[in-house]
Amino acid sequence: MSLLSLVLTLRPRRAAELPSALGRAAHAALLAAIGRVDPALAQRLHDEAGPRPFTCSSLLGMRAAGAVQPDLTYTLRYTALTAELADLLAGLFPPGEAEVELDHVAFTVEVAASTAEAHPWAGRTTYEALAARWLLAQERPEAQISLHLASPTAFKVGGKAQPFPLPELVFGSLLEKWNAYAPLAFPEETRRFAAECLGVSRFELGTHAAPFKGEGVVKFGAVGTVTYAALNRDRYWLSLIHVLAEFAQFAGVGAGTALGMGQCRALTPPAPSPKPFAGAQDDRTSG
Amino acid sequence: MSLLSLVLTLRPRRAAELPSALGRAAHAALLAAIGRVDPALAQRLHDEAGPRPFTCSSLLGMRAAGAVQPDLTYTLRYTALTAELADLLAGLFPPGEAEVELDHVAFTVEVAASTAEAHPWAGRTTYEALAARWLLAQERPEAQISLHLASPTAFKVGGKAQPFPLPELVFGSLLEKWNAYAPLAFPEETRRFAAECLGVSRFELGTHAAPFKGEGVVKFGAVGTVTYAALNRDRYWLSLIHVLAEFAQFAGVGAGTALGMGQCRALTPPAPSPKPFAGAQDDRTSG
Repeated sequence: MSLLSLVLTLRPRRAAELPSALGRAAHAALLAAIGRVDPALAQRLHDEAGPRPFTCSSLLGMRAAGAVQPDLTYTLRYTALTAELADLLAGLFPPGEAEVELDHVAFTVEVAASTAEAHPWAGRTTYEALAARWLLAQERPEAQISLHLASPTAFKVGGKAQPFPLPELVFGSLLEKWNAYAPLAFPEETRRFAAECLGVSRFELGTHAAPFKGEGVVKFGAVGTVTYAALNRDRYWLSLIHVLAEFAQFAGVGAGTALGMGQCRALTPPAPSPKPFAGAQDDRTSG
Repeated sequence: MSLLSLVLTLRPRRAAELPSALGRAAHAALLAAIGRVDPALAQRLHDEAGPRPFTCSSLLGMRAAGAVQPDLTYTLRYTALTAELADLLAGLFPPGEAEVELDHVAFTVEVAASTAEAHPWAGRTTYEALAARWLLAQERPEAQISLHLASPTAFKVGGKAQPFPLPELVFGSLLEKWNAYAPLAFPEETRRFAAECLGVSRFELGTHAAPFKGEGVVKFGAVGTVTYAALNRDRYWLSLIHVLAEFAQFAGVGAGTALGMGQCRALTPPAPSPKPFAGAQDDRTSG
């Protein structure tokens, strides 16, 4: 196993007000948990530059007036992109025993889901299995690919934060992480295929604030769904795009994925057709 | 007067089922009305390539099961980008007399609004007045500009339809039309300023089907609001951007503006701040 998506069900020990932005706290809690088992690895993960071999969600779940309540449970998701980290993460939060502290509030881990059966965002696989599913498939890959951007997603382009999930940015980001950690790299031309041969066929997206207190350029991102359509149905390139789309569940997309941004998952089947244009220009339109 | 936005209030002569996509019918009705007054101009408008000196909306207003009803009124908007066409358009649909036929259904023109007081989407001005307002202003121009994309908006980029309103596409499209018809052209570098110095700071957008039966590449576009923020507050360049944003009410944005796409208006004041990220990943999230 080299790819793991672990979904934790958490219960707070006490009622407490917490900021909505807890991506940085979730990141710190992961490194703290790793540090208790392997301090050298935690230090290395803290220090190293470039794409991170893990992602973190913010704390997920409904809160009234910002407060968490001990009679409710909440969700936190961590993913690992290397065998070393995936093996460690799988046992890092034993349910009933582990505790996660977010912004000085302690949560008990009640469930640690690591399979799709246990939670739709959880999963475990390998790079080889992900690639084989598409590259060795009999049938022609679907021309449409839909992604659910579940937390704010943005890209750094020319010093700017860019929240529109252009195909070359989404699949370029996934390609970069794939090639950083997978045993078999994909061609750099995959990005060019995305740029030239994938169109954006529909979307429903809005901007939300980033799930961490922003310093630097990324303070917000897009949340919603987007569907890409291949204008060129070349089987090889389209299969690579499908592999990368499935990889998104583990890798996240774009900037800040280690701080709660870019939580992403391929949707099957594709999102429904675009609505017909309703036609009302504004309130003054009669009818 | 060289810029006119005319908003017609229409009442159908009879109840009738009509397709939702009436942009092409609205276009045909405009050329027919022009042809009754100036057949040579109508022919020229029909034949000429490049950016059109007019835009058309689709038929706007609520319909039950696709049908228009004679006890309700509907809205249709036409704009003109040249003095010749604006002067003609201003008198083309005398209320109480004029009739507009859309897809074989006759509508009576009840109101023809051409001022902002009469309808928020109506207006009449000149290129010089639009430019002077910003270029001769005392105060520093706002760093944020919000646009309302009221009908599906898309751009043709590299043979593809691209529905994300990237700043260089939006302001590049407006610049192209401004320079085609304004007495004083703006520098081509305005597009580069938009590309390099305008960021997308928030949006709420979804795709809708185009308001005409699509042949060719553009079959859908984005509807909603988008806010751009200047990362460089150079007064001259930012003023040009503001002029182009106001010009959008007359010029429309992107592809298909003569067929009902790209109906656009600058919003004042800017749209509200992005919502905090709600945090719920999917239905399985507890809470």
